[in-house]
Amino acid sequence: MFDTVTVVGVGLIGGSFGLVLKERKLAKKVIGISRSKESIEAALRLGLIDETLELSQAVAKSDLIYVAIPVDATVTVVGEIMDMISGNQIVADAGSTKYALCNSINGHPMRRRFVATHPMWGTEFSGPEAATRDSFAGRSCVICEREQCEEDALLTIEEIYKTLGMHLVYMDAASHDMHAAYVSHIAHITSFALANTVLEKEKEEDAIFELAGGGFESTVRLAKSSPAMWAPVFMQNRENVLDVLNEHISQLKKFKSCLEKENNDYLWELMVNANKIKRIIK
Amino acid sequence: MFDTVTVVGVGLIGGSFGLVLKERKLAKKVIGISRSKESIEAALRLGLIDETLELSQAVAKSDLIYVAIPVDATVTVVGEIMDMISGNQIVADAGSTKYALCNSINGHPMRRRFVATHPMWGTEFSGPEAATRDSFAGRSCVICEREQCEEDALLTIEEIYKTLGMHLVYMDAASHDMHAAYVSHIAHITSFALANTVLEKEKEEDAIFELAGGGFESTVRLAKSSPAMWAPVFMQNRENVLDVLNEHISQLKKFKSCLEKENNDYLWELMVNANKIKRIIK
Repeated sequence: MFDTVTVVGVGLIGGSFGLVLKERKLAKKVIGISRSKESIEAALRLGLIDETLELSQAVAKSDLIYVAIPVDATVTVVGEIMDMISGNQIVADAGSTKYALCNSINGHPMRRRFVATHPMWGTEFSGPEAATRDSFAGRSCVICEREQCEEDALLTIEEIYKTLGMHLVYMDAASHDMHAAYVSHIAHITSFALANTVLEKEKEEDAIFELAGGGFESTVRLAKSSPAMWAPVFMQNRENVLDVLNEHISQLKKFKSCLEKENNDYLWELMVNANKIKRIIK
Repeated sequence: MFDTVTVVGVGLIGGSFGLVLKERKLAKKVIGISRSKESIEAALRLGLIDETLELSQAVAKSDLIYVAIPVDATVTVVGEIMDMISGNQIVADAGSTKYALCNSINGHPMRRRFVATHPMWGTEFSGPEAATRDSFAGRSCVICEREQCEEDALLTIEEIYKTLGMHLVYMDAASHDMHAAYVSHIAHITSFALANTVLEKEKEEDAIFELAGGGFESTVRLAKSSPAMWAPVFMQNRENVLDVLNEHISQLKKFKSCLEKENNDYLWELMVNANKIKRIIK
């Protein structure tokens, strides 16, 4: 059990992390940090955190500093925190990209106190109000470059995630970013683009609302996601995202060609192939 | 209350329709029809239907004949049924396209006994096992060309859907198909294409399984849908689907261009615009 934990970022992930640490009595005190006064007020009101402090004061008091903010800011802030800590403190992040971050602190004298993690859950909602107590359970958490971590730091972070019910997966940072682009980031891009498509074509908002039962809702869910969180993810991971986005556009063009040429056999073939996803995702 | 109803097609929609008619005592007897012996056996076992007969025998005994099969077969079968009925029977369908069907029976002497409907719900599952008792409630049902229906036929069908908890929406058939392409059909195409994209790029199935928590699952859900059901929808509605598919490809290319040119401002603009979908879909 920790005496004091600081969460930098008190939104969906950071706020939920503070909440579950408190509720499961894994931390006596959770300090929350945010650039937004409204977010801090909401996090205090919702009981996600106990207090707020300046970053340097918070870090000085904390056994663990957990960073859950947009991935561009994460690189900067983790760097700052690494310069503040001593050898018995632990730093971890929860970002959706790992390569730029791991690369940025390679060779830092405190590198071995840092654990790069990506708990694979999320919703389309953001901010402290989106935090939930059952958020980590049953999901995978990727830990990158564990060989760079001191054993006690790694074990502590692993233990927390296991206590929260997560299944641990290990990867190097470059592989993580590639897999995350293929499975997660492209799904967000397609959903954002689908929302823009429908908003562009369908000028009758009533029709969207009334007909959304036909499959649109789940497919467009991620289009409600926060640009502040996701724009930096796409930019940091742009090579992998572009790679899979190009493939996706070419897959859509196959459907287009089937329809243009009324090629029913090929249309079936494409759909039967897509059905294979059932084998993997129940 | 009906004495006897025939459902042609005992899958997700037809099977659920039979089940709710029986459970709510809206029909004394439900006759089920399917080309598949296995489907009929399952529908009998699951209590979705009471018996099966040849189509002509079933029609002869029924107050209402409800057709819920792929939209290409619907055109043929509804035509056959219309030739069999008398002036006090009612025929309705549940297909995802309406224009080709309505067009095909225009001028039929029994046209006014037919009600073209599209209950806007569905899941990615198909067959009798997918039928559920709570399936229609809270969703919209589109009724097309109501002015073509005799009043008693229209009122009866409206009454059933209202009893099932559906919200009725009225459109002409061409408008229905356009709106359905924009809101429902494109979502299925993007989901099928996304599954193919990920299956093509991500050769490590474990990675798909473990990282799917990152948003992939909901976006790819519809890719599990039945080609037998959806290929005819896309083909029958190909002009509208192509129109919106072209727009979708161009929206994806905007994201691609942002990433290629590292144009963060435009990327934000696209995402902020997509967020507007929150106004319409909660």
